[in-house]
Amino acid sequence: MPGHTLTPKLVHRPIPIPMTVSSNRRLILASGSEIRARLLRNAGLEIEVMPARIDEDAIRASLAADDASPRDLADALAEMKARKISDKAPDALVIGCDQILECRRMVFAKPSHREDARDQLHALRGQAHRLLSAAVVFEAGKPIWRHVGEVRLTMRDFTDGYLDDYLARNWESIRETVGCYKLEEEGVRLFSRIEGDYFNVLGLPLIELLTWLGIRGDIAT
Amino acid sequence: MPGHTLTPKLVHRPIPIPMTVSSNRRLILASGSEIRARLLRNAGLEIEVMPARIDEDAIRASLAADDASPRDLADALAEMKARKISDKAPDALVIGCDQILECRRMVFAKPSHREDARDQLHALRGQAHRLLSAAVVFEAGKPIWRHVGEVRLTMRDFTDGYLDDYLARNWESIRETVGCYKLEEEGVRLFSRIEGDYFNVLGLPLIELLTWLGIRGDIAT
Repeated sequence: MPGHTLTPKLVHRPIPIPMTVSSNRRLILASGSEIRARLLRNAGLEIEVMPARIDEDAIRASLAADDASPRDLADALAEMKARKISDKAPDALVIGCDQILECRRMVFAKPSHREDARDQLHALRGQAHRLLSAAVVFEAGKPIWRHVGEVRLTMRDFTDGYLDDYLARNWESIRETVGCYKLEEEGVRLFSRIEGDYFNVLGLPLIELLTWLGIRGDIAT
Repeated sequence: MPGHTLTPKLVHRPIPIPMTVSSNRRLILASGSEIRARLLRNAGLEIEVMPARIDEDAIRASLAADDASPRDLADALAEMKARKISDKAPDALVIGCDQILECRRMVFAKPSHREDARDQLHALRGQAHRLLSAAVVFEAGKPIWRHVGEVRLTMRDFTDGYLDDYLARNWESIRETVGCYKLEEEGVRLFSRIEGDYFNVLGLPLIELLTWLGIRGDIAT
């Protein structure tokens, strides 16, 4: 789609829309992620944002102890967030989301400090990893739809020197990211290959969610 | 990469970088596309922008008459743009780019007016199409690297009513796009499936280009 002025600029500009979402249907995003909210709003959906506070670390540890797969883990965390908000807003459709990075059967969390980021990038270097983006929709306290999208990314075999320079330049920007990169910044230079739907890189299986909302009749088709 | 603040915001913010591109190597983008320039700059490259003016319509018509494939067409247009600027700046690496939309052996250009957009979206509806993103690099008037990236996108079978509403809401935003959509806006709602590297959706095979520049030693690896 050449001629694009720019993804970013557009995300900031409210889209002038006679809303197409059924106005009688409340849609709540149970996530504090700015990018997920903007993806949905830019697609023309009217949403409320109510981040669910759950103890992710404890839940991850507990599920890991139960040998849950990374996919199950992402799905379970998305479900817990949606459930928590649905209990407070039973009339709404509540969207819970989570994203997990998995590499060689290990799950990676956000780096706790810069040395941790260095260790993680050492582990990911020269390897393929998966980003699993889960969404679960609740209505009246019950799950009514779920999907886990997957992207496969391959990091090139960068040098230790490059890694140090990368962290020196990018640490402040990537400290809140799983995987220690942003593809839309210098992070793209860590990669030799990316396979899959970009919305799943950003943390939301957007096309599948929109398709389902359309089938339900909650958005125009 | 959850925790992302946002693609867009980041694109606007200059990245605080001790440049990693060899400073003795001029890099010129022979394209007026804002998004291509930002993709490269956000990846940490220092580039000059010098759009090449060529008569694309005439060249397309001429190549189409020669039965050129859509891939050859994208590649040829990218080459012509790079050559034109390389002739003026033989010391630089000059990047020429083009993007072609192909559906059922037909090539689609930017819509000439709103009714044309409507006809194009009618033709694309319910079908898969390809976006071919070509880049050719010239040095001293000669091509030294080329790549055509490909993304496959499938439009859902939206209704005529939805199409009319979509155009009413989005025409001003999409009039300069090939395909009549922006995935980062309501355009995503036209799709049931997207397969491939998002950078090729945006019009530049960025990962392949960066990989090659790294192998040459023009950027740090």
